[in-house]
Amino acid sequence: MRNFSYILGLVLCICVTTFAQHPGLILTKTGVMQIKSSQHPPLFAKSVKNAKSLVDAAISQEIDVPVPKDMAGGYSHEKHKTNYKEMLYAGALYQITGEDKYAEFVRTMLLEYTRLFPTLGKHPAEKSYSRGKLFWQCLNDANWLVYTSQAYDAVYDYIPEAERDLMEQDLFRPYADFVSTENPQFFNRVHNHSTWGNAAVGMIGLVMNDKELVNRALYGLPLDKNAALAKDNDGGFIYEAGKAKAGFFAQMDYAFSPDGYYTEGPYYQRYAMLPFMVFAQALNNKRPNLKIFEYRNGLLPKAVKALFYQTNAVGEFFPINDAQKGMSINAGSVITAINIAYGATGDQAFVAAASMQGEVLLDQNGFALAQEVEKNPNQKFKKESVELTDGKDGTEGALGILRSGAGADEMNVCYKYTGQGLGHGHFDKLSYSFYDGSTEVLQDYGAARWVNIDQKAGGRYLPENKTWSKQTIAHNALVVDGKSHFGGKYDIAVDKYSTPVYFNVSNPNLQVATAKESIAYEGVDMQRTLALWKDEEFEKPLLIDLMWIASDKNHTYELPFHHAGQIMDHSFEFEVNNPKVMGTAHGYQHVYQEAIGSLDKPMWQLGWYKDRKFYTITSTGNIGDEIVLARIGANDPNFNLRKDPFVIQRKKETSNTTFLSVVESHGAYSPVNEIPIQPYAKIQSIEIVEENNNEITFKISTKTKQWLFKANKQTGNLSKIKQ
Amino acid sequence: MRNFSYILGLVLCICVTTFAQHPGLILTKTGVMQIKSSQHPPLFAKSVKNAKSLVDAAISQEIDVPVPKDMAGGYSHEKHKTNYKEMLYAGALYQITGEDKYAEFVRTMLLEYTRLFPTLGKHPAEKSYSRGKLFWQCLNDANWLVYTSQAYDAVYDYIPEAERDLMEQDLFRPYADFVSTENPQFFNRVHNHSTWGNAAVGMIGLVMNDKELVNRALYGLPLDKNAALAKDNDGGFIYEAGKAKAGFFAQMDYAFSPDGYYTEGPYYQRYAMLPFMVFAQALNNKRPNLKIFEYRNGLLPKAVKALFYQTNAVGEFFPINDAQKGMSINAGSVITAINIAYGATGDQAFVAAASMQGEVLLDQNGFALAQEVEKNPNQKFKKESVELTDGKDGTEGALGILRSGAGADEMNVCYKYTGQGLGHGHFDKLSYSFYDGSTEVLQDYGAARWVNIDQKAGGRYLPENKTWSKQTIAHNALVVDGKSHFGGKYDIAVDKYSTPVYFNVSNPNLQVATAKESIAYEGVDMQRTLALWKDEEFEKPLLIDLMWIASDKNHTYELPFHHAGQIMDHSFEFEVNNPKVMGTAHGYQHVYQEAIGSLDKPMWQLGWYKDRKFYTITSTGNIGDEIVLARIGANDPNFNLRKDPFVIQRKKETSNTTFLSVVESHGAYSPVNEIPIQPYAKIQSIEIVEENNNEITFKISTKTKQWLFKANKQTGNLSKIKQ
Repeated sequence: MRNFSYILGLVLCICVTTFAQHPGLILTKTGVMQIKSSQHPPLFAKSVKNAKSLVDAAISQEIDVPVPKDMAGGYSHEKHKTNYKEMLYAGALYQITGEDKYAEFVRTMLLEYTRLFPTLGKHPAEKSYSRGKLFWQCLNDANWLVYTSQAYDAVYDYIPEAERDLMEQDLFRPYADFVSTENPQFFNRVHNHSTWGNAAVGMIGLVMNDKELVNRALYGLPLDKNAALAKDNDGGFIYEAGKAKAGFFAQMDYAFSPDGYYTEGPYYQRYAMLPFMVFAQALNNKRPNLKIFEYRNGLLPKAVKALFYQTNAVGEFFPINDAQKGMSINAGSVITAINIAYGATGDQAFVAAASMQGEVLLDQNGFALAQEVEKNPNQKFKKESVELTDGKDGTEGALGILRSGAGADEMNVCYKYTGQGLGHGHFDKLSYSFYDGSTEVLQDYGAARWVNIDQKAGGRYLPENKTWSKQTIAHNALVVDGKSHFGGKYDIAVDKYSTPVYFNVSNPNLQVATAKESIAYEGVDMQRTLALWKDEEFEKPLLIDLMWIASDKNHTYELPFHHAGQIMDHSFEFEVNNPKVMGTAHGYQHVYQEAIGSLDKPMWQLGWYKDRKFYTITSTGNIGDEIVLARIGANDPNFNLRKDPFVIQRKKETSNTTFLSVVESHGAYSPVNEIPIQPYAKIQSIEIVEENNNEITFKISTKTKQWLFKANKQTGNLSKIKQ
Repeated sequence: MRNFSYILGLVLCICVTTFAQHPGLILTKTGVMQIKSSQHPPLFAKSVKNAKSLVDAAISQEIDVPVPKDMAGGYSHEKHKTNYKEMLYAGALYQITGEDKYAEFVRTMLLEYTRLFPTLGKHPAEKSYSRGKLFWQCLNDANWLVYTSQAYDAVYDYIPEAERDLMEQDLFRPYADFVSTENPQFFNRVHNHSTWGNAAVGMIGLVMNDKELVNRALYGLPLDKNAALAKDNDGGFIYEAGKAKAGFFAQMDYAFSPDGYYTEGPYYQRYAMLPFMVFAQALNNKRPNLKIFEYRNGLLPKAVKALFYQTNAVGEFFPINDAQKGMSINAGSVITAINIAYGATGDQAFVAAASMQGEVLLDQNGFALAQEVEKNPNQKFKKESVELTDGKDGTEGALGILRSGAGADEMNVCYKYTGQGLGHGHFDKLSYSFYDGSTEVLQDYGAARWVNIDQKAGGRYLPENKTWSKQTIAHNALVVDGKSHFGGKYDIAVDKYSTPVYFNVSNPNLQVATAKESIAYEGVDMQRTLALWKDEEFEKPLLIDLMWIASDKNHTYELPFHHAGQIMDHSFEFEVNNPKVMGTAHGYQHVYQEAIGSLDKPMWQLGWYKDRKFYTITSTGNIGDEIVLARIGANDPNFNLRKDPFVIQRKKETSNTTFLSVVESHGAYSPVNEIPIQPYAKIQSIEIVEENNNEITFKISTKTKQWLFKANKQTGNLSKIKQ
């Protein structure tokens, strides 16, 4: 945060004199001057070029502002989305290039909307708990206002006053009222939907200098204490107990932990971050006395950084909870958030992020960032290992991220001991995913959903999201007696969280995270220690995975490892059968057993090949433990699931026990040169040397070397024993 | 071949005076002068740098020339391979840099081999029909000699004469005799193995100026007419009827068709091409009067071009017959072949290839090619659509390649109506694969093999290669009565080929290839017309696939389409069951039926998603035709197969019939922006309007447009009817 106070000071001194100036909402008059007076750095020039090609194409077509009719994916829905994006770019281009055609495009389109809006009732589709006007849900209407208020601000001085008055009277004010006072169940929640609503109302209020709207955005509508505990379309409660505030400040108080973690996870955070950051930028420009970027110890920039840190080597978000895989920091909302966060802090982490994104905003933040990227075009930024607490006070579990290396070679462990994650949460306490570069060594399945793809249930969550993706067996998490955590019941799980025990990443060669969970299964305590271990004997860091389980009673314990690779070798005998469905509920109804073996020695190994690289898991086991080679895909009548293979270690009739594994990344093979590099694991065995209620000592061996480790159950520490 | 005569003339005039000069085998004295006197173009500089880093690392280690012991993948095998590659680079670096350390490295290593060789009997592994000395098979020994003769030539003048005499007496001459006179079953075949043998003996002969060895290489050993029809390790005959010659000229006479097609397919051609080209280059330098590059109308450069043309948009070979997927023009052997072919012809196709390869040889050819690439760094070369005849006289079937677009957007259809392809052939007459950029829209499965991967049967062909990969059902080819072509019997198929009927690519908007096959199934004639059709209504070209079948008797016809994608939508109802193994032989023992439907209208559609793009097949059908959604992977005890899905259209109790499909590439979806672009096919229906014994008229319709096509069974032509 080196430049934080400097930049903030600069912004303050500029803005005091320019509250009512246009543009002044996001892009400022001073910003325009800077941009016009300097050579454009390559990244900025590229972004201008892209915007021009988009808007010029739109200008060459006839403007269409269709009567609302379709759901997401349909014509009217997508057209209104395209329209607001084109207006946003056109407004910025008008300021940057000074060409009137861009302002004229925005003006003409706004007049069309001004004509259409008063004729509209609610959207004909009756699918949302808060139906919109242009769109099927208020959420999209709020999106429209957030973008369009920026476009309006950019061309404000171009539009004749009489037309502005008409627009404000027939379009902007009634639209702001619609998404707020007329839809309190949308506007007054503590939820990402409401953040969009708050930002929409606040931003158009700032452009029109309407203090009442701005206050409504900041502090919400009066709360209706008698509102029922209704649920929204995602199954979350609309109003939650104990959250006694509304409006933008309430969102900031409740949505993030003090570390900037967003309880639904990064997939939803990248979407929610945009209204937080653009409204904050607008407030910073127009209401600098609020010191919005400093609120809660600089929470907003911290949250953007936390978001960037929840990515793998290529910037894809860890797909915890309901998340469509592949979503990354290259999403438009994250580009916006990173640019604004950089403007607020000057933190170099955001320069690295922008470098990966390859795109910047068309404003003073984007310009400054592009200049930085030009100075350091190829920097390999080492993201830190971090523990991000969950819950508004940081007391409801955490997400632990262990990482090593930088750039495309980064290795990441995303260890989840958070709260439930509201309606989008999965039942996967103490689960993790493990990445080697962009390769998922052990995957989190993510959501069963094709966002916006009409063929797949209209782009909504698929039935298999509930029956498979959310279930415990779909994760690298312990299943007890064939049931998901909390019995897979949201109402029970919603306020539960795991307990962080130990997190120490001060030694880059042995980074350790430990957490425990005692509520997911009644009468079963589990504690898992993950360690990212680096040793010169191995090309890449290894993952040590130690899980301790204690119970008074006997149970069946099943620990899945979702490798999703091509099996190369295995240390144990197994019998292959025709695929057999493994169960009827808790996700097992979607799993085929393809083979089963039983251990005849206290160890097993399985090697697989994936993305041209080799991996091996080496685990301890008890004689008689079963190893199941399984595959996703049973009872999938619409072919909605990916039929990925995984392996399950099963212990029957066991009370207290320990699962111990080490996962090794050990080689590569290219079909072009056909030369395998180290296709076999170096690790030959793993062995528990001594174990009691407090400690475990174990040995990892290659052909020529041995290492002794000790893990402490009380402290959660894991350390190497010098020999 | 613009520069052909110019370059040839230059080479001639240089070489006449330099037959006995060193270096003069591949890299020439004149070449060294050119390289030393000019600025290195970037590609050449990069290749020099890579070679230096490899050899400098080797020089810093102790030289190891181990006693032969291991199979492929094992230490001694891989070490001897590494040694000859290091010597090759070191020799070239000595010439280019003038640094003695490189020559000294080669000299020292050669002395080690000279010491070791006389002590060697045959290699201890008894796995080959022609066991080697340093390696388990003579083939690798020949590799060693081909590379090492170049290294020896490069440092010839550096090594004291007495040491040279020793090397030639104890190592090179006896080694040349070993791979020829002592192993006639290896040396005297018409086969890629023997080409390596011929090149090895000829090249070391040229360096030593040993005419007897050179003649042996060119014309072979006297033929043993009584040799039995023994088979080699791949199941091919060692001696074949009617091939009455041996030696390098015989290879050129028999190995290629006049179009430069190699009957085993491009995967094996890319390997075989190296000894052809390096020996030819050596002959062109040392025996220019042979005019080797002009032999058979310039066959060798033509074959290299044919090889380049048998690739998809990213340079990967069409994996017909036994081929490990992913093998591409980036393989070292193809870099060598392309460089030499460019030197012989100056053809710009090779410049485009070198640009993709990103690497050149360290000689005058590589230098000239790198200069060309520097001049045109980003050219998008449009590979032509071609029909490559098969058989030494070009009369034994052909491979038809239809393509459109250039660079990474290239679309390719590889249509196979060749001969069997010897021991590596698959039973897949009239099959094809279809590519959209690097995406396999409809795949050829390729081989079931992990080359050099010890875990998978020591890197040899897996049992499933025979039981699955070679079978007809594993291809986009017609299966009659559940049996593979020729009953899956190699001895029957070996000399059979399909009949090319029509090939016309003069209209870039409708390129057509037709072939027929009447022998694969007794009493069943099949003729297939494939057309790559471009129309402004569609973003990308479409594939039209028309198959006519005639028989006197009723049969079950099954036509598989190997999409290997995620199913998105389907026009027909189906019933999903637990996976059911589809048969017991001819590949069906490896297939699960996942769902089955029966047509209740004369058309069906299936859409899938793959590599972030959407595809749909629209096909005609008869009421009652069955559509099976199938998956590879049954009876696969070692998890050797990729469990890819495909679809089968089945017609029961049918004699004459027609299969007609159109495959549409129609959209894209990125999980980053989550905006689907045209996720549904534009094509709504396909309909046969009229059909008789000679002709078929069919209609393809979108919502707003229609096209009529006419196909002629006699001529094989397919044309659009103007409306």
